[in-house]
Amino acid sequence: MELAPQMLDAGAKVIDLSGAFRLRDAGTYSRWYQEKHTAPQLLADAVYGLPEFCRDGIAQARLISNPGCYPTAANLAIQPLIASGVIDRAAGIVCDAKSGVSGAGRKPSLKTSFCEVTENFSAYSVLDHRHVPEILMVSGIEEPELSFTAQLIPIHRGILETIYFRPQNLSSAEALLEIYRARYENEPFVRLYPLGAMPDIRGVDRTNFCDIGVKFDPATGRAVVVSAIDNLVKGAAGQAVQNMNLALGFPETEGLL
Amino acid sequence: MELAPQMLDAGAKVIDLSGAFRLRDAGTYSRWYQEKHTAPQLLADAVYGLPEFCRDGIAQARLISNPGCYPTAANLAIQPLIASGVIDRAAGIVCDAKSGVSGAGRKPSLKTSFCEVTENFSAYSVLDHRHVPEILMVSGIEEPELSFTAQLIPIHRGILETIYFRPQNLSSAEALLEIYRARYENEPFVRLYPLGAMPDIRGVDRTNFCDIGVKFDPATGRAVVVSAIDNLVKGAAGQAVQNMNLALGFPETEGLL
Amino acid sequence: MELAPQMLDAGAKVIDLSGAFRLRDAGTYSRWYQEKHTAPQLLADAVYGLPEFCRDGIAQARLISNPGCYPTAANLAIQPLIASGVIDRAAGIVCDAKSGVSGAGRKPSLKTSFCEVTENFSAYSVLDHRHVPEILMVSGIEEPELSFTAQLIPIHRGILETIYFRPQNLSSAEALLEIYRARYENEPFVRLYPLGAMPDIRGVDRTNFCDIGVKFDPATGRAVVVSAIDNLVKGAAGQAVQNMNLALGFPETEGLL
Amino acid sequence: MELAPQMLDAGAKVIDLSGAFRLRDAGTYSRWYQEKHTAPQLLADAVYGLPEFCRDGIAQARLISNPGCYPTAANLAIQPLIASGVIDRAAGIVCDAKSGVSGAGRKPSLKTSFCEVTENFSAYSVLDHRHVPEILMVSGIEEPELSFTAQLIPIHRGILETIYFRPQNLSSAEALLEIYRARYENEPFVRLYPLGAMPDIRGVDRTNFCDIGVKFDPATGRAVVVSAIDNLVKGAAGQAVQNMNLALGFPETEGLL
Repeated sequence: MELAPQMLDAGAKVIDLSGAFRLRDAGTYSRWYQEKHTAPQLLADAVYGLPEFCRDGIAQARLISNPGCYPTAANLAIQPLIASGVIDRAAGIVCDAKSGVSGAGRKPSLKTSFCEVTENFSAYSVLDHRHVPEILMVSGIEEPELSFTAQLIPIHRGILETIYFRPQNLSSAEALLEIYRARYENEPFVRLYPLGAMPDIRGVDRTNFCDIGVKFDPATGRAVVVSAIDNLVKGAAGQAVQNMNLALGFPETEGLL
Repeated sequence: MELAPQMLDAGAKVIDLSGAFRLRDAGTYSRWYQEKHTAPQLLADAVYGLPEFCRDGIAQARLISNPGCYPTAANLAIQPLIASGVIDRAAGIVCDAKSGVSGAGRKPSLKTSFCEVTENFSAYSVLDHRHVPEILMVSGIEEPELSFTAQLIPIHRGILETIYFRPQNLSSAEALLEIYRARYENEPFVRLYPLGAMPDIRGVDRTNFCDIGVKFDPATGRAVVVSAIDNLVKGAAGQAVQNMNLALGFPETEGLL
Repeated sequence: MELAPQMLDAGAKVIDLSGAFRLRDAGTYSRWYQEKHTAPQLLADAVYGLPEFCRDGIAQARLISNPGCYPTAANLAIQPLIASGVIDRAAGIVCDAKSGVSGAGRKPSLKTSFCEVTENFSAYSVLDHRHVPEILMVSGIEEPELSFTAQLIPIHRGILETIYFRPQNLSSAEALLEIYRARYENEPFVRLYPLGAMPDIRGVDRTNFCDIGVKFDPATGRAVVVSAIDNLVKGAAGQAVQNMNLALGFPETEGLL
Repeated sequence: MELAPQMLDAGAKVIDLSGAFRLRDAGTYSRWYQEKHTAPQLLADAVYGLPEFCRDGIAQARLISNPGCYPTAANLAIQPLIASGVIDRAAGIVCDAKSGVSGAGRKPSLKTSFCEVTENFSAYSVLDHRHVPEILMVSGIEEPELSFTAQLIPIHRGILETIYFRPQNLSSAEALLEIYRARYENEPFVRLYPLGAMPDIRGVDRTNFCDIGVKFDPATGRAVVVSAIDNLVKGAAGQAVQNMNLALGFPETEGLL
């Protein structure tokens, strides 16, 4: 929020990994981040840097706002379901998210010290995590529709999100998977698991992939989607490189695994 | 299933930690455990060993079926909500469960080997875990109402379950907590967290406690309950000791932390 | 160093867990702790709180200096060997020490943050750890005779030290074990492993025990002793309780596992 | 031992990762591996695949015996010291070795199961590990001179060895480091740490590097060398690729980090 205006004034393109320019208006920002936005004039220009959804905008942007780690995994899984109308939105969507400790940043704190984290597992920011509005904005849902909880896994890196919803107009698990297949068939960094298997964090470790798997039991009308990324790659620096490649005209996968 | 009949014939009281006598009928057993029940005549006599719900029956029983680890944490959290009618059951209940590796037993396997588990997190038995029917039976809900997923945390012991539901006829978070307070005020092994705090696995490590915390946002109608136990104590051997104490007329808390 | 004098003036007995009063003179203190000692007048009165070696003094002391964690495991293993003359001291003694992260204290730092420690292992304070002079003092050896290295294990608690020496006048592994047996036969908190087995950290977890195991190969003249404690119990608070019990006339094992 | 003869007969070059062809004679093999060697006729042809010491032989060999993981880290650290004559061999050399769990192979066992390993640390094969003869052979020392202990760290991958010796004819720490500098100045996969710093396992994670650091205190005549590798890369598959590159005439660093 401080540096981006100076860099833009100097003529640079900016890819911002902070949360400063992810939301569309200063009021929403100040509600979730609990501080006043000091560069609101830039919000209209900022492009949300999720290439799978905003590729053209990113290529033209001078200010790219790199997505939060949780929203990256959540939106890649949820938005196609909303867009295709297979979620009974009245029943709500649950996104139970778990992250490795590096998601909290590098600054030492008691909460991220080894002895507090090892052999433990805990929930935090239940329902009010500041990444929630990014999910609402990108997936196109309202706050009452989404229950989001963040939880800390005693691992270095990686996010896994387990997403629950009540389907409507959905005939089979195969049809659920087909929604993702159609949406991501040309995407280099989204991988789909076959029916019967689910992603894990190991599978995306140190890669820019988002792995997605599905389960649907038509007899009981319950559906689950699991989405996994490495929070330090697709959830942060890797996606920033992907955005840089788009913004500078390089092949989108350059330098990425 | 093999040994219990012999022990009962010999006049012993039996506390069974296996899944053999937890469900009420042989058909449900064979659906979820995928094998024929060989001692169905004992099912009617078996008492489900969750002291908070079946204390009197346990004291009289000759065959006590010690609950599964996941259902212990789930039922202590869900049943009071069902009984008090504050869940909009049409919207469903999500129980996102996470367990340490000891939940899988001591027998060596690739899935529980150190190198597979460390720095990983994965979902398994999505929607079809064999502990599901125990939750349905004790909490009094139907299969379509419950979405249950088990997940593996890279820790030795402990279970944390994050439970999501849409409330009805619920005025405040305080009222939600009050349901548990009223239900468990005399229970030695259920502890409630104050509003604003949530249990973690460290807090119940090597104890027989089940810790429960709640969050409810009336403005958006979303509610979350977190329940934590040590799967090897309240989820297994500790609860068996608690049951033994009841069955033999010892103080219920004898030998337990 | 600041509080102990005030407490002693107020007539209290003091058990000090800091390093302030462990060494015998202010000069040695300032060399290893790199600060001036501000209460040197108390050094002569302070009793080193290793009950296995100083039980009578502890019972009479008004200022008990609780030993460091590394020296507790080291001295219990090394001193009996020095006292019995089975070490070829010219060849030197190696003490390769490993500790869980809680040994570094609770204050957050980058070095003890989860992401730095997990899946890592590192040496620190090679040859110049401030616990070295405690080992020299208690075991009765000179600085050139001891090579001590501290290393960080990615675990919460526990110390294991692997001690190497060249024996002299030692006939068999059985004779080596017998030295410890004779020395510790009445000690409640020292346990010896039989030949062929070695202690591990799990075995002393949350206990006040020091476990010791030995290996000696007469054909090649090489010997190894392994010593393990829980740094938070026998290495800190547990030993302080043991000292308190002695100082106040309680049974020495009161309140300890 | 079974497959290599068949492959060689078929005209292939063989890089063997087992221990079958690492030692020079069948008798030594059967002593340490406790089984009869079934292809002793190949031992004379086998070249020990440590490129830093046997580069020319590897390039010409048809049977390359890839070194054990512990000996790779040990020999790269010890051999230059022996060759330069700075070790007082009468005092002996201690190699205190620690390895991640993958060193034990992928086959499930109780010893490598998550619940046994996490929050633990243990010594095994004290003085009699089967990798000992490889160190003796390559570094040119006798069994009584070396005390080697293997220990299990609760991490996935990586080896750190702490090596202790009494120097002779060594003037300074700088001179100690210079021995390695002279020996490895053209080696692409050996890195030296500057005085005052020591390698850790994180630094070599997923790389083919062996990192070495030294400490020497001339006043007391004690010296320590720390050596670190990734046991799955420089300690196994990476070194095999390095050997393959040499054997097939590719650039030695091809495909390696």
